Amino acid sequence: MNNSTESPSSRAKGTVALRWHGSSLELLDQRLLPAQEHWIALEGAADVAQCIQDMVVRGAPAIGISAAYGVALAARHAGNGDWKAEIKQAIRELSASRPTAVNLFWALQRMERVFHACDSLGEAQRRLADEAVAIHQEDLAGNLAMADHAIEAMGLSTGTDSATPVSVLTHCNTGALATGGYGTALGVIRRLHEKKLLKQVYADETRPWLQGSRLTAWELMRDGIPVTLNADGAAAAILAAGEVRWIIVGADRITANGDVANKIGTYSLAVLARHHKVGFMVVAPSSTVDMSLSSGADIPIEERDGSEVRQVRGVPLAPDGVPVFNPVFDVTPAHLIDLIVTEKGVVRNPDISGMHGLFG
Amino acid sequence: MNNSTESPSSRAKGTVALRWHGSSLELLDQRLLPAQEHWIALEGAADVAQCIQDMVVRGAPAIGISAAYGVALAARHAGNGDWKAEIKQAIRELSASRPTAVNLFWALQRMERVFHACDSLGEAQRRLADEAVAIHQEDLAGNLAMADHAIEAMGLSTGTDSATPVSVLTHCNTGALATGGYGTALGVIRRLHEKKLLKQVYADETRPWLQGSRLTAWELMRDGIPVTLNADGAAAAILAAGEVRWIIVGADRITANGDVANKIGTYSLAVLARHHKVGFMVVAPSSTVDMSLSSGADIPIEERDGSEVRQVRGVPLAPDGVPVFNPVFDVTPAHLIDLIVTEKGVVRNPDISGMHGLFG
Repeated sequence: MNNSTESPSSRAKGTVALRWHGSSLELLDQRLLPAQEHWIALEGAADVAQCIQDMVVRGAPAIGISAAYGVALAARHAGNGDWKAEIKQAIRELSASRPTAVNLFWALQRMERVFHACDSLGEAQRRLADEAVAIHQEDLAGNLAMADHAIEAMGLSTGTDSATPVSVLTHCNTGALATGGYGTALGVIRRLHEKKLLKQVYADETRPWLQGSRLTAWELMRDGIPVTLNADGAAAAILAAGEVRWIIVGADRITANGDVANKIGTYSLAVLARHHKVGFMVVAPSSTVDMSLSSGADIPIEERDGSEVRQVRGVPLAPDGVPVFNPVFDVTPAHLIDLIVTEKGVVRNPDISGMHGLFG
Repeated sequence: MNNSTESPSSRAKGTVALRWHGSSLELLDQRLLPAQEHWIALEGAADVAQCIQDMVVRGAPAIGISAAYGVALAARHAGNGDWKAEIKQAIRELSASRPTAVNLFWALQRMERVFHACDSLGEAQRRLADEAVAIHQEDLAGNLAMADHAIEAMGLSTGTDSATPVSVLTHCNTGALATGGYGTALGVIRRLHEKKLLKQVYADETRPWLQGSRLTAWELMRDGIPVTLNADGAAAAILAAGEVRWIIVGADRITANGDVANKIGTYSLAVLARHHKVGFMVVAPSSTVDMSLSSGADIPIEERDGSEVRQVRGVPLAPDGVPVFNPVFDVTPAHLIDLIVTEKGVVRNPDISGMHGLFG
């Protein structure tokens, strides 16, 4: 049995986004990075839901893990009276925090199954904490496994001195800050670096929330991985220059036909990758796969307030009141994707049959 | 003969970027928009060169016009001694201010030809001021002509009530603020609106300098033209939604084969337009065409300091010292362009022969 007071984060090397203390969850406030490393301690599920909604924590896997801990906190601090209603309410609140990433719903369903099997509050407290820790640990282990699958699928020779390092381009942040502690797309990049197969990472700044500038650049610089930042609009010029061999991104939801919802701007990169004959790889835990949806058209796409585009950190950039289209995600159709990589393995040229083969 | 103390801007409707007063040039400081409308009065060519370099004024046509006025100012304020050396020095300084837009060099060459034909300082003062005003006036007249050419080339019916308004997407700012007073790409959009053929303009915010948020949104809102702002990375999702029929952009240099250098992010839109079967139109004065360069590979591409990506208005967004790739322009190959529109007419599916036919 897991020791539910030990945070799996203590086993992650380097940067982490969350720390579990048994009766509280600490989240690194990602809104303040890179200027400030400020941790917020949470004791209730409502606070966790608010932090997910406000993007204190972001990244599909990290959102799922945080929500699981949120349920554990609800149990931990529930009264002896109608503790079942309190936990149910917590699950409801958490599931309403963000609409697009499916890992959130997956993690909550897993917690709910454990919850329904509990007969007493004490049992619920113990087992829900254990389950959240398990989700967290599995995510970390899964990240390591998918990195290995990806490197193998990329066909890079690692056995000889002659392996030529490649340059890659990534979007948003899919690293330790977005996951249980290593990274999905950024985990693959991290592993390339560990194996001396990485020349250079180009990081899209990723407007409007600037996850690339604020988080990916920060995380990669901390870990000594060579990163060059670029405006999102410069990605095409970088691809045209011919140095980049792969675009590697994460996912917030993957449907049964291999369509992928991910951070706004991802779909543009997929079109550009195909045009420039550059590989396009999506890396995500299998909990991101939602076989209940037949295609990307079924994925609810969150739109956030226009102020995210009109302002940066409160500094106005655009005229007051200008209408803004601010979808957080877009959908990349499967036919533009070369590899979907999960901890369970790789789907090449994804389609219904390939997806069913691995996740059916 | 022109009256060189009357600013052609007084004939432009609405917003203008520059005003000529005969012995001084006023520039609207575009770095401060939309928060502040601050005009800077300049009496010397060195100040004009500095303002071009610092992007107080920007937009290829407006840069060319400003440089021409800079030469006129150099003559106006030259001493009676070696006035020729003073004017030559001014032309040198102005030509070193920005490297990519060819309108700058075109305008300076025009001014230089007039200068070489002058025998006295008095003649130079009069004729150089007249020539700058003529360049300014011709730019404005050219904008109006290219708008008409574009509407005709788009094949939109304007003679009946049944003409269906279209939505378009644009990048950067190519409006009154970028030109002598009406706009190139944004002039076409303005004309669509005047003819009730415009449904909606989507404006890319255009990182890093945010010309879309700060200038295009401001200019269109002032003129009552319906605009929706989007992050550059959202353009692909907008195209996928199917409402946009044309992407309309400007140019900083067009080579003899029809390749186009324009604001970073333009090339990405051209690839996306082709993928989504959306029209891609480049609108620019013929002074943007540089038949001396055989292809876009020969265009010098300006890179500006990484702080433009690392910060917005002094607010740090990325870790200190992170390397940045910050090219100001990219090159769109001719084969991705449907229409090049100038005041001289339209080149469809541009190539060497089509370009030579109109500009050879």
